[in-house]
Amino acid sequence: MGLLVVGTVAFDTIESAYGKVDRVVGGAAQYASYAASYFTEDIRLVSIIGDDFPQDELEELRSRGVDLKGLKVVKGGKSFFWAGKYHDDMNGRDTLVTDLNVLADFDPVLPDSFKHSQYILLGNLTPDIQISVIEQLEVKPQLIVLDTMNFWIDIALDSLLKAINLCDVLTINDEEARMLSGEFSLVKAAAKILDMGPDFLIIKKGEHGALLFDRNNVFFAPALPLEKVVDPTGAGDCFAGGFLGHIAKTQDLTFENMKRAVIYGSAMASFAVEDFGNIRIKSVTQEELARRVDAFVALSAFTL
Amino acid sequence: MGLLVVGTVAFDTIESAYGKVDRVVGGAAQYASYAASYFTEDIRLVSIIGDDFPQDELEELRSRGVDLKGLKVVKGGKSFFWAGKYHDDMNGRDTLVTDLNVLADFDPVLPDSFKHSQYILLGNLTPDIQISVIEQLEVKPQLIVLDTMNFWIDIALDSLLKAINLCDVLTINDEEARMLSGEFSLVKAAAKILDMGPDFLIIKKGEHGALLFDRNNVFFAPALPLEKVVDPTGAGDCFAGGFLGHIAKTQDLTFENMKRAVIYGSAMASFAVEDFGNIRIKSVTQEELARRVDAFVALSAFTL
Repeated sequence: MGLLVVGTVAFDTIESAYGKVDRVVGGAAQYASYAASYFTEDIRLVSIIGDDFPQDELEELRSRGVDLKGLKVVKGGKSFFWAGKYHDDMNGRDTLVTDLNVLADFDPVLPDSFKHSQYILLGNLTPDIQISVIEQLEVKPQLIVLDTMNFWIDIALDSLLKAINLCDVLTINDEEARMLSGEFSLVKAAAKILDMGPDFLIIKKGEHGALLFDRNNVFFAPALPLEKVVDPTGAGDCFAGGFLGHIAKTQDLTFENMKRAVIYGSAMASFAVEDFGNIRIKSVTQEELARRVDAFVALSAFTL
Repeated sequence: MGLLVVGTVAFDTIESAYGKVDRVVGGAAQYASYAASYFTEDIRLVSIIGDDFPQDELEELRSRGVDLKGLKVVKGGKSFFWAGKYHDDMNGRDTLVTDLNVLADFDPVLPDSFKHSQYILLGNLTPDIQISVIEQLEVKPQLIVLDTMNFWIDIALDSLLKAINLCDVLTINDEEARMLSGEFSLVKAAAKILDMGPDFLIIKKGEHGALLFDRNNVFFAPALPLEKVVDPTGAGDCFAGGFLGHIAKTQDLTFENMKRAVIYGSAMASFAVEDFGNIRIKSVTQEELARRVDAFVALSAFTL
């Protein structure tokens, strides 16, 4: 079936109340691939890096079933670099440095063997790149998940609306949903956004959980209250990777199964934030995952 | 059994994106009593008003089973008055006027027939008043629910800690839980606050739902995503009234039943915000309540 992930692979320098790490491996496609690797071993990654990127990190991705044929390595180029500092409440952050480097020329070309992928995750990139990836697919996929952010709503709304129209599941945060729809009520915002084309909308609310909408249903997945949030970087990408990984594994596009996928995505996000960078998302065991998902059941189950 | 509610009965002038209402009936004890009245008709209200208060509003409370023997009416006095304006996002508000009026001299004396009440709801008042009410009880009640706010954490922490130690369920919002505990993580905050005495802690997160903690369990109740939030005033009080109303009706203090009570409380809060003041919380039918609770089930139920 094949789960295609398109997005950034990067170095991040991250500071939070728990300390600071320098130039650790990050990027949406990397996070999402690790998260998805707990559900499927048929992952195809499309991204761009410089030749400054550590080989052992690439080897580790390969060992998880991630096909790196679509990862362009630019000779003499530098990988995308981001530096940021989280506020003490972990809900806000300041970006200190954004060096696009090789990402500035990212124009993804899908290897032929990726063009029949069934489950597509388009990480936060320019909408034109997201559209170009969709246009290179040679069969209509089962599900296209599109992530985006406020920046593209501001500066590339027309392209973004075209990309949204082509996707099946849009994932954005609550602030972005309000911005995109012009509606404060998330119920009204969801209705307007679903009218833009996607069949499903996931509104991510960070520590407050996530909402899944289709035209007739709404489901709320809480975030697990955690003792320690060390580093929120990549949480949304791990959510998306876990979400689509579960869908790819089960090949079931019903709302009931989407709900499960949101829970698995939330579980992956809850692991990701427990340590800096990709440390924790690489070390999860299937037993830990099962226990974590049980914790979500305990957190939200009640009988009347 | 008897559900005793101690708190304010007031006039409110409220402005939100949906309009403005002048001097409508409000106050925590009033909201909580209406919400509780859907579960029990043995409610005892203790508060203070001036003789400016409309008789028909008092009659309506009586008709719902609310005993007003403990409602002191001060001849020539003016009822507590609050005016506020909600921000467009409904999550913040500015207080424009707070006229304590007769509330400045509130020193509640429980009528003898109230002193054996089994379920006690102490609305947000000075901690000393809350303590004085508890001390007037002649039998140990089944459950004391205490509401408070940041103001008392700031200026009356010692008394507040004494009141918290005497209660069984503390209800506060997430910001206050962090302030009271000095912990950012709500898991750590909950552990510290439970060490202060209560068996249960409810952390209210407004549009993001509510968390229920005891020493071994945590439960998350989502807030229902609504098309229209007209006026959040009293939502927390209706939550508390619905919560304790359900407990009083079922007389079951297990964590499983507390979870149900949180859902019923959330349902009452979701009604309260649909119109200004007490308009909506007075008009709910049992059928609407059943449908609303079903909506909470649909919102959060999933199977693995």
